[in-house]
Amino acid sequence: NQNIRIAITPGDGIGPEVVSEAVHCLEALRDKYHLPLEWIRFPWPSHAWHEKHGESMPPDALEQLQRFDAILLGALGDPGPAYDNARYLLPDSVSLAPLLQIRKHFDQWVCERPARLLPGAHQYLADVRARNVDMLVIRENSEGEYVGQGGRLRQGTPDEIATQVEIFTYRASERIIRYAFEQARNRAQQRQASGQPRTFHGQSGSESTSQVCLVTKRNALRHWGDLYTEVFAAVARDYPDVALHHELVDAACMKFVQCPWAFDVVVASNLQGDILTDLAAILSGGMGVAPSCNLNPDNLELPSMFEPTHGSAPDIAGQGLADPTAMLLTTARMLEWLSQKTPQLGVAAEALFNAVTADLADYSGQQRDTQSIGHSVRERLR
Amino acid sequence: NQNIRIAITPGDGIGPEVVSEAVHCLEALRDKYHLPLEWIRFPWPSHAWHEKHGESMPPDALEQLQRFDAILLGALGDPGPAYDNARYLLPDSVSLAPLLQIRKHFDQWVCERPARLLPGAHQYLADVRARNVDMLVIRENSEGEYVGQGGRLRQGTPDEIATQVEIFTYRASERIIRYAFEQARNRAQQRQASGQPRTFHGQSGSESTSQVCLVTKRNALRHWGDLYTEVFAAVARDYPDVALHHELVDAACMKFVQCPWAFDVVVASNLQGDILTDLAAILSGGMGVAPSCNLNPDNLELPSMFEPTHGSAPDIAGQGLADPTAMLLTTARMLEWLSQKTPQLGVAAEALFNAVTADLADYSGQQRDTQSIGHSVRERLR
Ligand SMILES: CC(C)[C@H](C(=O)O)[C@@H](O)C(=O)O
Ligand SMILES: CC(C)[C@H](C(=O)O)[C@@H](O)C(=O)O
Repeated sequence: NQNIRIAITPGDGIGPEVVSEAVHCLEALRDKYHLPLEWIRFPWPSHAWHEKHGESMPPDALEQLQRFDAILLGALGDPGPAYDNARYLLPDSVSLAPLLQIRKHFDQWVCERPARLLPGAHQYLADVRARNVDMLVIRENSEGEYVGQGGRLRQGTPDEIATQVEIFTYRASERIIRYAFEQARNRAQQRQASGQPRTFHGQSGSESTSQVCLVTKRNALRHWGDLYTEVFAAVARDYPDVALHHELVDAACMKFVQCPWAFDVVVASNLQGDILTDLAAILSGGMGVAPSCNLNPDNLELPSMFEPTHGSAPDIAGQGLADPTAMLLTTARMLEWLSQKTPQLGVAAEALFNAVTADLADYSGQQRDTQSIGHSVRERLR
Repeated sequence: NQNIRIAITPGDGIGPEVVSEAVHCLEALRDKYHLPLEWIRFPWPSHAWHEKHGESMPPDALEQLQRFDAILLGALGDPGPAYDNARYLLPDSVSLAPLLQIRKHFDQWVCERPARLLPGAHQYLADVRARNVDMLVIRENSEGEYVGQGGRLRQGTPDEIATQVEIFTYRASERIIRYAFEQARNRAQQRQASGQPRTFHGQSGSESTSQVCLVTKRNALRHWGDLYTEVFAAVARDYPDVALHHELVDAACMKFVQCPWAFDVVVASNLQGDILTDLAAILSGGMGVAPSCNLNPDNLELPSMFEPTHGSAPDIAGQGLADPTAMLLTTARMLEWLSQKTPQLGVAAEALFNAVTADLADYSGQQRDTQSIGHSVRERLR
């Protein structure tokens, strides 16, 4: 009978602005549905904290976060004054480090990023079929290209050699690929239940109500490409109902623009998934509407982290220009996730999702500021 | 007074079909302009050669190729029967190996892929400004993610660990980044000469007639991200006339779809360049019209390799459906490259480029078979 506890971490740039709308919606939902929800707002991780303490978060940050059921994060990153320097342009890396630390510490091995072109969202592709984009990109979130191994030999000299080691394990590959197949099945069932089944083609020509597309660069990055391919084939045997595809990452990016409506579930490595999900976000209407989450499906006692795909967008920060839609969809996904612990939250998740999508459809393309959108969604929740 | 010698390697799938149109055009140009050109056609590298000899090319293939001034390659790769197997879908890796071997052996360290939406080419993006896409993606082609280092430990067991080592050197980073700046300058001069200058913005807000955008994933792949960033800043000092951008690869892919018209020259690592150039190919109208080349600008005595961005497209091979436009634009680029040795070839390069673009504009979007397109271009050359 304990409350569900959420750590609210607004972060940098537009983070606080969009998080603030999410919190208003959480309040409205809590009051309406008498939800056992509580939250605490943290000033870290953030660039400001870093400026003051030399670290993006306090030494016991991960221990503090561990006491929560979920982390709701706005956005991290502030390039600082280097951004204005014409001769030395460095995308920020320091203030983003906590993101990777949190994902790693709580073993949030799934990064789930749905890309569905909701009614009212901007369509970047000319083809009318792009309206039907509705895919789920599953990104391996615990290893691969992001293990931070390697270094710089003879740094700063003409003889310098920099290395970066990618590490892939059977264990992490198997769980993420299996997770993708499970999601494909769930999606097919949901479509069936709502009377909107879809048909997908496997690479072999077979037909099915769901599909998983594996992405690798097996022809150049052989070692883990082969591992992924073999694991994919093995896991697929347990899912004869799911159509199979295997795309090389370059071809996958191309097809995301050429025929994104042909994809259902896509599973990819950490870096390739990062790239594909940014592309997919555009297909769903842009960063303003692209939700994301970092999940540990094995252990609900550890907090999963919910953050929109977008970054801190320092160029528009503080001006009320940021679209909070992505943040609100992310919040709905958080409530859905937490309903595994407290089923009551499922209703709130649905209510929030419906309010956001209805609002998006009604104001289709109209320029509104952050607070107007938040306010309008909140009104619909009452 | 020697002839310029071209090794023609049609390869697999649609390769022979599109190469055959290129050869007809070369004949027409040679006859019209009395060009000192000769060529030999090789049945390797190819899947067929592999089937017969267990290798994709003979043991002395690289020595044989070394005697040529250029290699004109159709496409490689044939997934074989595995492609038809519903349970085990493996993009081909064996028959593609020669591509990487040739690039490496002749130190073709530049992969140059222009993406310009030529009149008549298909526009995938809804925004009208996408008509103005005109960028050049420079891909590092000699190291990085493609060094083939690493392996599989405890292969095939649940304890397996696969590694892939990325290696970046100062030397290769410096030469490719400098090459990108040189191209930016050239392009600005050409635009100036043709009375069509463009204006680009640097990240700092500065304005310039050209731009170089560096792509890395510096916030997650720190070691070489830092190396590239530092080299970029150092080289940029020699080009104060060029506007600078630095994008993370995920954001770059996003912006390629959101605002591709804002890019001029883009420079990226081997893998990230591979991904970006496939995307860029789509922006220029699709694989059917996307030329590519692998250059060694240091040593004109070694053959550079000219191959369209597209692959062997086994699904449409042998049906006369392939668009030879990419191959013909690639051939024009080869002649332009070779004009460094034999200036006379420059006129032929221009004639071929003009014939292909005029043809594309005239038949805008009409469905034509491989030979019709080749024939129509050839007629324009006479
Ligand atoms: C900030 C960066 C390290 C991060 C990533 O690459 O994972 C971001 O791009 C994301 O997709 O969440
Ligand atoms: C076939 C493959 C190894 C190759 C590459 O990745 O370099 C191809 O995709 C290309 O872009 O030329």
